[in-house]
Amino acid sequence: MRPPVATVTIHRVEDGRGVRAEDLLVTEEPLEIRLGFGQLDDRREVRLSVTMRTPGHDEELVLGFLLSEGIVTGAAQVLRVEQCANVKEEERGNVVRAELHPSLDLDPDRWQRNFYTTSSCGVCGKSSIEAVHAQCGRSITPWGPVDPAVLTTLPDRMRAAQTVFTHTGGIHAAALFDPKGRLLLLREDVGRHNAVDKVIGAAHRAGLALTASQLLVSGRAGFELVQKCVVAGIPLMAAVGAPSSLAVQLARDGGLTLVGFLRGGRFNLYAGGA
Amino acid sequence: MRPPVATVTIHRVEDGRGVRAEDLLVTEEPLEIRLGFGQLDDRREVRLSVTMRTPGHDEELVLGFLLSEGIVTGAAQVLRVEQCANVKEEERGNVVRAELHPSLDLDPDRWQRNFYTTSSCGVCGKSSIEAVHAQCGRSITPWGPVDPAVLTTLPDRMRAAQTVFTHTGGIHAAALFDPKGRLLLLREDVGRHNAVDKVIGAAHRAGLALTASQLLVSGRAGFELVQKCVVAGIPLMAAVGAPSSLAVQLARDGGLTLVGFLRGGRFNLYAGGA
Repeated sequence: MRPPVATVTIHRVEDGRGVRAEDLLVTEEPLEIRLGFGQLDDRREVRLSVTMRTPGHDEELVLGFLLSEGIVTGAAQVLRVEQCANVKEEERGNVVRAELHPSLDLDPDRWQRNFYTTSSCGVCGKSSIEAVHAQCGRSITPWGPVDPAVLTTLPDRMRAAQTVFTHTGGIHAAALFDPKGRLLLLREDVGRHNAVDKVIGAAHRAGLALTASQLLVSGRAGFELVQKCVVAGIPLMAAVGAPSSLAVQLARDGGLTLVGFLRGGRFNLYAGGA
Repeated sequence: MRPPVATVTIHRVEDGRGVRAEDLLVTEEPLEIRLGFGQLDDRREVRLSVTMRTPGHDEELVLGFLLSEGIVTGAAQVLRVEQCANVKEEERGNVVRAELHPSLDLDPDRWQRNFYTTSSCGVCGKSSIEAVHAQCGRSITPWGPVDPAVLTTLPDRMRAAQTVFTHTGGIHAAALFDPKGRLLLLREDVGRHNAVDKVIGAAHRAGLALTASQLLVSGRAGFELVQKCVVAGIPLMAAVGAPSSLAVQLARDGGLTLVGFLRGGRFNLYAGGA
């Protein structure tokens, strides 16, 4: 099993000076959930869902998912949950199969359509990253060295422009800035991926060059948000929170400059920008 | 268009005393994205995805989604994005159609399977809530009045038991407690829904009674997490962060006691528990 944390070498920047440092990231890897069901003489297998998760307690995750999404109505309907052994070497540990009671009358098509959650349908980190490259078919124009004096001003500028967060405390923001740190666009949404999509759509409508802009997000930097930047051609993404292991891998592989923990005048450089 | 914030009456509890108060919530509503494409003499329409979002800038959201997920490779491939008028009254404002250039050769099956994100496939708040009830087919045993002296101790108990967060700052936690506030289970994951599923699966494996337990989550309380509690029969969910409008609606409708902003010895009661 992959460990829940991964170590990377980063640049930690404070008072404008960067030092090389080791950093611990939370591991993010895809998990494919398969269902086995049907009569004994007709054992079918269905690929139900791929979810990005932190490895560990995967069998519990699958059992809980089946119960909390109403696919089964009791744990007794699940005969067995286990890691699949007959998968490719690099996918081992990322595919779990739940064997359901043969008496269950499920319509696999219904569930299959409901649960695919990402366009990157790889079942290991490497294939997820490859799927992103296949999608976008373009390269990012590298941002070059970051300017700490500009970067560290972005969170306050974003917060000053937020309206809904002030009232509810319950919303994510994404803000697009030009290279000098001037706010171009801000969007808020209950879903962080939606806030990013709104910014990308609005930038295209306004004729703004995403390829020469930097994006700040209010939360964490997971694989999904980095994927959106890479595919849309945004060269720098900064997050107020922490990135995941797979987000850093994809950023390094895709040429995206990735900044994390941007707050209080400090930040970490996880990919590019040094 | 629905406003991005909604007002609810809640109980605000501080120093063990509750007062009725008005609170502003971020609005969460489903958005269905439809694609129109094909030759002029064969205009097909495909339901691509349902995403939970905050209303507003919906056409930008759809354009950005198509670009950032690699469904189109340039904004010029999208001829038009507009709200659908020919939908049911209650779905109006929640269905957006993007008309793609007829020369685009897309395989709708591929995209359709990749993007359905929730088992609640309603396209308005009401139908989303109805879909949850259809799934679970059971009622929650009400929690009764909450005990502020117990509730306010839960965040510190959860944090003390977290391991990965301490090192990475990048992970969500979900913790199950008995009615007296004793920690039963803690799980961490990069995805907040996964942390909750791991707890539900682990509780079933350990023979713990979810129906007499309270769940604390480290982040916000969105529709998806409340859905999981309702379907799994957990009677009380508390969040360190803010709930969304649809989360509160579903909790009230489903008999779930919902606590938000549980931190610093204070909390808000959004559903039940008074």
